Amino acid sequence: MDRLIEAIRTKKNPTVAGLDPKLSYIPSFLRKAAYAKYGETLEGAAEAILQFNYGLIDALAAIVPAVKPQCAYYEQFGWQGMRALEATIRYAQQKGLYVITDGKRNDIGTTMEAYAKAHLGTTEVEGTQIPAFDGDALTVNPYLGSDGIRPLLPICKERDKSIFALVKTSNPSSGELQDRTFADGKTLYATIGSLCEDWGKESRGQYGYSRVGAVVGATYPTQLGELRKALPHTFFLVPGYGAQGGGAKDVAPAFDQHGLGAIVNASRSILTAWQKVGAAEQDYAKAAAEEAIQMRDAIMAEIGGIQ
Amino acid sequence: MDRLIEAIRTKKNPTVAGLDPKLSYIPSFLRKAAYAKYGETLEGAAEAILQFNYGLIDALAAIVPAVKPQCAYYEQFGWQGMRALEATIRYAQQKGLYVITDGKRNDIGTTMEAYAKAHLGTTEVEGTQIPAFDGDALTVNPYLGSDGIRPLLPICKERDKSIFALVKTSNPSSGELQDRTFADGKTLYATIGSLCEDWGKESRGQYGYSRVGAVVGATYPTQLGELRKALPHTFFLVPGYGAQGGGAKDVAPAFDQHGLGAIVNASRSILTAWQKVGAAEQDYAKAAAEEAIQMRDAIMAEIGGIQ
Repeated sequence: MDRLIEAIRTKKNPTVAGLDPKLSYIPSFLRKAAYAKYGETLEGAAEAILQFNYGLIDALAAIVPAVKPQCAYYEQFGWQGMRALEATIRYAQQKGLYVITDGKRNDIGTTMEAYAKAHLGTTEVEGTQIPAFDGDALTVNPYLGSDGIRPLLPICKERDKSIFALVKTSNPSSGELQDRTFADGKTLYATIGSLCEDWGKESRGQYGYSRVGAVVGATYPTQLGELRKALPHTFFLVPGYGAQGGGAKDVAPAFDQHGLGAIVNASRSILTAWQKVGAAEQDYAKAAAEEAIQMRDAIMAEIGGIQ
Repeated sequence: MDRLIEAIRTKKNPTVAGLDPKLSYIPSFLRKAAYAKYGETLEGAAEAILQFNYGLIDALAAIVPAVKPQCAYYEQFGWQGMRALEATIRYAQQKGLYVITDGKRNDIGTTMEAYAKAHLGTTEVEGTQIPAFDGDALTVNPYLGSDGIRPLLPICKERDKSIFALVKTSNPSSGELQDRTFADGKTLYATIGSLCEDWGKESRGQYGYSRVGAVVGATYPTQLGELRKALPHTFFLVPGYGAQGGGAKDVAPAFDQHGLGAIVNASRSILTAWQKVGAAEQDYAKAAAEEAIQMRDAIMAEIGGIQ
């Protein structure tokens, strides 16, 4: 997690911009140009989201330390969308951004290893190691237990990557399962939180945080604070800020006394800022940057600086 | 789930062949031909797995009702692998096979809807609905609760598709979380099982099974039998047969009194049958078909027929 933490410290900004492009967010001049090249097809749509992302990345690269593309918004455009995902990751990295691929992947054994190779490692083709999507971190779903997490760890170590396991998600029904209490008095989310500490214990970096982070929603500030105390070596990815209802005060408990320990994501509020403020289409990226700055400033004011 | 059940009844075979292609399973004549066209690249590897799948599908189409491609084994070859996944799904459907896309996808709200569009529905591009991967069923991970499942249901209804939610997985550490007992005396897996009945209650078909199935591992026969009784409207996808250790006796409790209620998956034992029996490379698909027939016969002998 050190690379992410260093990027946060350098940019003095503990936020990540979610790249969740829907066609309805994309200015018509970009869509028209893409369709002129590739037709109103999955390929045309994938080209439109890629050009949209390029503009956003250019505008955001000096502000945020990281971006988080959500796989679902690429996958819905088929393999053509997945090609745009790969190009997005590569471009963001070239611009110095840390990329968290939000795939919530999960499986066991060699199958989970295949996901690890796909998103964090390399795939061997006749003796040559070739990277596929090659983000810097991947979100994963821990429902299958250690068999679903341990296959990721050697690849994280070898290639300096990290994961974020779902612990307490930001959605209204997250409590349906996650808040239930086991016979030992511990909730399901707290149980997985403890497992994150365990899975990460061999990989703590110079700031004390391991390569195994946790996803904890901004919409549950009490649990955020409780988990921050219980999991001192687990870095948090905090979704649910902005459009989902979480504010700067809500996410403050996710941070430690140095202003570290968490990165807060906003997607929709940044991507649709140009529509919200009524900006000209050509200024969509500028509006996104302004929204990202506001978010940074609101959270920094709340946590009082990063050491 | 009716389309799957009818295919099972027609072929008198409650098994599904997992299409989890690793390069090491693929005969060298196929790999060489693919590399000659596209080089030892992700594209070359994706072409090799696609040609391997075409041969398997041709040989298996008369035997099994369904195939189950596992996304991870395609994703590790990047978007080129995802293109091979799409081509595999399309070819299998042309050959009359029901396709269960094993993606264990999960997210919430409109993001989960994007996965539903990607794998079961269609994506709208400027007013035109275009299918992307378009399998017949998708495996999903229910850790996020109803917010992660309900977005799938309208698309399943509209396009006659189904889902399988992870309930009790086949891996050794599945008990780490899934077997834990909540304060109400119910295990986590049984709790999710009950939710499957609830999520499916509007979509029961002519055999009494809903569009919301459950994944329950062959390696836990006691839980299989317990869940079969507790979840009378939930069809089971049963992994873990063969290479993972489950046998025909182990999966018998998954079936109802009509020999329905479950479909059993084997992947590695079918894909590597040619290597195990020492067949000529050219006979890889024939060996797979023979292994699939043995599996069918062993399970049919155990359950005593399908009504």
